[in-house]
Amino acid sequence: MTTEKIDNVTVSTQANVYFDGKCVSHGITFADGTKKSVGVVLPSTLTFNTGAPEIMECVAGSCEYKLAGSDTWLQSTAGQQFSVPGHSSFEIRVTEAYHYICHFG
Amino acid sequence: MTTEKIDNVTVSTQANVYFDGKCVSHGITFADGTKKSVGVVLPSTLTFNTGAPEIMECVAGSCEYKLAGSDTWLQSTAGQQFSVPGHSSFEIRVTEAYHYICHFG
Repeated sequence: MTTEKIDNVTVSTQANVYFDGKCVSHGITFADGTKKSVGVVLPSTLTFNTGAPEIMECVAGSCEYKLAGSDTWLQSTAGQQFSVPGHSSFEIRVTEAYHYICHFG
Repeated sequence: MTTEKIDNVTVSTQANVYFDGKCVSHGITFADGTKKSVGVVLPSTLTFNTGAPEIMECVAGSCEYKLAGSDTWLQSTAGQQFSVPGHSSFEIRVTEAYHYICHFG
């Protein structure tokens, strides 16, 4: 089951644009102050660094990802998620747009 | 003054990707059912067609735009907006990312 909508949030109107637009997200804030982002990765292979730990929840499309220290590419599709430790990194390989919710902490 | 945040909305988690990612937006819905979108146009020259009339509010960056039937390029920067009739079109020329709120109707 995928999360199609998120209710009762404040959305930041200015997008976050990474890697010349290969990744675009908008920040959202919940009533309790929790911050997440909704975004999309377009076809590309990118490396993301994390500050806080992240959970990447796929809401449409798919990706392959490889965590720092791993040699294994794993797939994540709509309704699935994967966790990335804080102060780490992961590679992501996308051939069709990968739409996600990024949960922090 | 620019609109940095929009409160109390439902955000659609799947992005709208236009023109191979040169324009990416997320739909938002207000408590009263009003729909808008928040998005970004990356450096490019694009032509958008409208269904409903639209008001394009710039929240960061800038663009030049030319409405259907006009020969004049006009600039729109943060805090400014322009209106596009329904069932019409406009060209948009962007050299730095143009972040916007699209108001319909």
